[in-house]
Amino acid sequence: MIAVLAVLLPSASAQSLNLMPMPAKVQMGNGQLLLGHGLSVSVSGAQDAHSDRAILNFLKNLRSQTGWVALDTHVIPDGGASLLIRAGRTSLPVQELGEDESYRLVVNPSGGRLDAPTTLGIMRGLQTFLQLVQTGAQGFFVPALTIDDAPRFPWRGLMIDVSRHFIPIEVLKRNLDAMAAVKMNVFHWHLSDDQGFRVESRKFPRLQEMGSDGLYYTQDEVRDLISYARDRGIRIVPEFDMPGHSTSWFAGYPDLASAPGPYAVERKFGVFDPAMNPTEEYTYQFLDEFIGEMAQLFPDKYFHIGGDEVNGKQWDANPDIQKFMRSHDLKSNADLQSYFNQRVQQIVSRHGKIMEGWDEILQANLPKDIVIQSWRGQASLAAAARQGFRGILSSGYYLDLMWPAAQHYAVDPISDGTQTLTPEQQKAVLGGEACMWEEYGSPENIDSKIWPRAAAIAERLWSPQNLTDVGSMYARMEFVSKRLDYLGLMHHSNYEPMLRRIAGTDDASAVRVLADVLEPVKDYTREELAATPPSSLDPLNRMVDTVRPESLLARQFAHLVDQYLQGKAAPEQEATMRQLMTLWRDNDLRIQSLAPQSFLLQEVEPVSATLAKLAAAGLQAMDYRGSGKPAPADWRTSSLALAQAALQPRAQVLLAVAPSLQSLIVATGDKVKAGPGAK
Amino acid sequence: MIAVLAVLLPSASAQSLNLMPMPAKVQMGNGQLLLGHGLSVSVSGAQDAHSDRAILNFLKNLRSQTGWVALDTHVIPDGGASLLIRAGRTSLPVQELGEDESYRLVVNPSGGRLDAPTTLGIMRGLQTFLQLVQTGAQGFFVPALTIDDAPRFPWRGLMIDVSRHFIPIEVLKRNLDAMAAVKMNVFHWHLSDDQGFRVESRKFPRLQEMGSDGLYYTQDEVRDLISYARDRGIRIVPEFDMPGHSTSWFAGYPDLASAPGPYAVERKFGVFDPAMNPTEEYTYQFLDEFIGEMAQLFPDKYFHIGGDEVNGKQWDANPDIQKFMRSHDLKSNADLQSYFNQRVQQIVSRHGKIMEGWDEILQANLPKDIVIQSWRGQASLAAAARQGFRGILSSGYYLDLMWPAAQHYAVDPISDGTQTLTPEQQKAVLGGEACMWEEYGSPENIDSKIWPRAAAIAERLWSPQNLTDVGSMYARMEFVSKRLDYLGLMHHSNYEPMLRRIAGTDDASAVRVLADVLEPVKDYTREELAATPPSSLDPLNRMVDTVRPESLLARQFAHLVDQYLQGKAAPEQEATMRQLMTLWRDNDLRIQSLAPQSFLLQEVEPVSATLAKLAAAGLQAMDYRGSGKPAPADWRTSSLALAQAALQPRAQVLLAVAPSLQSLIVATGDKVKAGPGAK
Repeated sequence: MIAVLAVLLPSASAQSLNLMPMPAKVQMGNGQLLLGHGLSVSVSGAQDAHSDRAILNFLKNLRSQTGWVALDTHVIPDGGASLLIRAGRTSLPVQELGEDESYRLVVNPSGGRLDAPTTLGIMRGLQTFLQLVQTGAQGFFVPALTIDDAPRFPWRGLMIDVSRHFIPIEVLKRNLDAMAAVKMNVFHWHLSDDQGFRVESRKFPRLQEMGSDGLYYTQDEVRDLISYARDRGIRIVPEFDMPGHSTSWFAGYPDLASAPGPYAVERKFGVFDPAMNPTEEYTYQFLDEFIGEMAQLFPDKYFHIGGDEVNGKQWDANPDIQKFMRSHDLKSNADLQSYFNQRVQQIVSRHGKIMEGWDEILQANLPKDIVIQSWRGQASLAAAARQGFRGILSSGYYLDLMWPAAQHYAVDPISDGTQTLTPEQQKAVLGGEACMWEEYGSPENIDSKIWPRAAAIAERLWSPQNLTDVGSMYARMEFVSKRLDYLGLMHHSNYEPMLRRIAGTDDASAVRVLADVLEPVKDYTREELAATPPSSLDPLNRMVDTVRPESLLARQFAHLVDQYLQGKAAPEQEATMRQLMTLWRDNDLRIQSLAPQSFLLQEVEPVSATLAKLAAAGLQAMDYRGSGKPAPADWRTSSLALAQAALQPRAQVLLAVAPSLQSLIVATGDKVKAGPGAK
Repeated sequence: MIAVLAVLLPSASAQSLNLMPMPAKVQMGNGQLLLGHGLSVSVSGAQDAHSDRAILNFLKNLRSQTGWVALDTHVIPDGGASLLIRAGRTSLPVQELGEDESYRLVVNPSGGRLDAPTTLGIMRGLQTFLQLVQTGAQGFFVPALTIDDAPRFPWRGLMIDVSRHFIPIEVLKRNLDAMAAVKMNVFHWHLSDDQGFRVESRKFPRLQEMGSDGLYYTQDEVRDLISYARDRGIRIVPEFDMPGHSTSWFAGYPDLASAPGPYAVERKFGVFDPAMNPTEEYTYQFLDEFIGEMAQLFPDKYFHIGGDEVNGKQWDANPDIQKFMRSHDLKSNADLQSYFNQRVQQIVSRHGKIMEGWDEILQANLPKDIVIQSWRGQASLAAAARQGFRGILSSGYYLDLMWPAAQHYAVDPISDGTQTLTPEQQKAVLGGEACMWEEYGSPENIDSKIWPRAAAIAERLWSPQNLTDVGSMYARMEFVSKRLDYLGLMHHSNYEPMLRRIAGTDDASAVRVLADVLEPVKDYTREELAATPPSSLDPLNRMVDTVRPESLLARQFAHLVDQYLQGKAAPEQEATMRQLMTLWRDNDLRIQSLAPQSFLLQEVEPVSATLAKLAAAGLQAMDYRGSGKPAPADWRTSSLALAQAALQPRAQVLLAVAPSLQSLIVATGDKVKAGPGAK
């Protein structure tokens, strides 16, 4: 594990450090700092209210993690503590992009010392310390070591779409806690879209009154969340998507649109016709006032205007807009949107902010300080950089596509197009953002859609580029994932109640056996397979809403099958394979007995039946292979057909163990190289 | 199941109603009300802000329970809804003891109707409706039925001690949600004791400043919690324990005490010497101002002054107090406390409140409106009632004693002493309160110490007295317990993270196998077995802090063994017994491999070893019994000795399956009445 860092890690115990993101440099020492029934902390150097609260939060998190219910959270002033903290200067009052986040953590058996140029670096180092606290024979301890750490990219974000489904403040808070745990530093708050306008405007109250179904954040709540984020070293960048993706604005202010109203909040998902009218001065007067209000509310220097996916239909159909285009020599809708962007950029700039937007806003005549967020890929970022624009990568980091963590982990902001940039141009690539679009996210399941996979992206954006060992990543990600429970994340705890709801009884064990090897369909297949167009009003209580994006058990089973087919499986591993397949084969009877009483289970009953048959075939495949003789041709034919069918989605879920079971069946045609159980 | 109600329940489906507390009268109808993707509600009759919020909360809870993320929570004004709600009058602005809580709920396939004399009855009926919502073949549904329900007792409380360990507001809120779910109506907030003073006093700020380690509720938080409770039909009765159990007061105000200070917050548990000085006018001036302030803050009519466990040592040692006693003809410390109680009662009364206190405050010369809370038993309540005093029962309802739910369930306020009262006198028995003293409670484990056992007490206090079927109670309690997850209760979800902490790795499966059959020692054995005196500063991360008060698996195993020994076990049941014992036998190897790395596991390693040996003996016992021949005498002798030893606590936990395994071994000496597997 942690192969690429092996040169830096002299001792065997370094291998077991469950750090994520992995620090830039770790040097193991001798022995450990044993923590008794607590940890005392003293602070010298620079400090402010944010860093004081960060230290308090660190101690509270340590309390949760250890069960030290009475851990004293007072800082010892005189330096006689077991952890000494010293920052060179305070982070800026309004946290800025590019502030120094580096730190040095030295732990030896007599104590720990955390130094950083800024209080922001202290916040990062404290998270590393928390991850280092382990259970030992004599008590909790931290291994002796020296860590020198700094992030690779200055912009490491998570976007949450709260428009398509509203996500309450307390859910955002726990996600900010998780972000801080993996050293992410930007929360991108996608606050408006066709399906909902989620923030209180005092100047234009019909925005939230008519655009949110009553589900929006008050300005007090916004300020509270900003302060919460600031104490965790996280900037908050608001996004108000325009001129498209803005139907919810028009519910209250139809005059902003390019076609007459009335409008209502959109319930379906996709790209819709309504767009702001870029040819009316009213639009810019409105936006000037609105952006002015929001620029006051959100202190961050960056202001995201969206700008994506305008289909132009309303513009095409409006004679006044067409006339305006002709008279202003705007030859296409792209030109018209450029005009809009320039006007909006001037407004954003006048209110002291730097404009950010999706790929579509990129145009040479905008000021060079704007930031492009790319959902298209590294090539777009490279093109932007060559024109002198900065950018961040989100292509490859869309959590809602239900990819395995390894797939996100393999995406690097500096690769493909951006690799060919000069080192100077590469600096324009600021980092990246994981994005959680919320067509199917709810307060109940959002944590499990984001975590732990976002931690892999966080590592990609923080740690050295040559850290690419997927096995190590998964091992550490799983550890960090479990640690998030102590922060109140609910990606583990909400699973069982959701499964019980599907089971329709208070015993979800059979449903869990099935769900543990299912995954939601990937990419945009869920929309494509939907019998009726999905809507934001749909319940989110189905199996597809419940199962994890990436099945841990399927990954473990795939590893076992891989070992087995290479002739490397130990007897216990073969036994585990057989136990699992027996469990899956026999589970269907239990599902069949439950399904008549549950509409939520009925839709996945066929998946359970397929799993049972395929598991039975997998067991037979092992028998054939064990016998050393090839399987009968007709058995192979029918079993391979079964496996092929099992790869198809049903009820919008995938049988995540189907590929491994297929491999077992396919291999019955192989010449067996070594007997089962051979090492 | 639900045997005593069988006469009222005509159809078989009534048996499966998972209601707790069981309503007074249930009449099953035909068919069911099928809920589509939601439920619409209309309200007529009386309503106020509390009942409006109660209906909103009902819809939000329904949303959580069903996964209807977009359930419209607006009330339909015109009555065309699927659930019609009508209250005769609003509950009093400040909820009072004895308000009508009855309701009638009629559900048929076309809709539901909830009627109640008061909005309080509506709140109770809505909880019943929530419990009735089930998963069916076509969707969620409620069975057609008619329920006429009213509580047996008007005072159904839960006391939480927040002094020995502070419990944050959000933890209290989720416990209030659970209380409302089982129709409890009094939250008794034990706010001060030797170990902490937990509420902000503006008149005497040193109370919280020096008496709480910074862990107290602000007055705003108190008002918020009172309002939260009120919306759930729950009164909040504050308790300030005096004249004993008051060390934390003296940290800031030593002059209140009967011996010179200085004082510091007490860290140990038990009964301590410090007590208020009942002979100084300063004491009463202070209490007059303090009680005046708190009487304003807490609107409830009742005010609890504690009054328990004064050891009198400070009084004995103070010459001025002795002189005062002589000059006032007070012959004993009990007389002195009586004098104190009379003075305090006058103060409480002057501030518009009715005094409540523990048994010790009972004295004939106090006004008859005071309420006695009895930790001593029904006889004390009977004695009080005969003197014309009202009382509530807490003896038998102490949740911190770690009793099984059935033991609490068997305790009835009207039994033993109180049974001999006249019907008129029996009315003085107002109900009871479950009590959760917090020597070993933390925000992390308090939910599991209270729930689900408090639900059994809630049923005892609400439902008809002749409802005593323990099997039915356990089945329904388990169902309700799982439903509490949707309200945010953490008695299930915090278990796994606590087990992982003990395991010291991210795989707690072996530790869970062990923990699932352990229980904490009962009654006050934990103190008695402690090597050093327990303290409020101790970590609460041990196995004894983690395991549930009552092992569900041990109860299920006991049932299997019982069936088996009666010759009634089905072959699957015997197979399950063997599987469980094999699991326990083999688990110790896994525990042994983990224990060297975890100090938290090491202390229960011997318990795991004992379980393994005893499970092996249990398997052998089944073999012997199966063989039809008696077991060898030396095997029996050694196995019985092993079982006997296994009944002893170790590391302050009990092996909850030991009695059942002992029975299996004992039975190898029996003449086998029927072969294994016989029906």
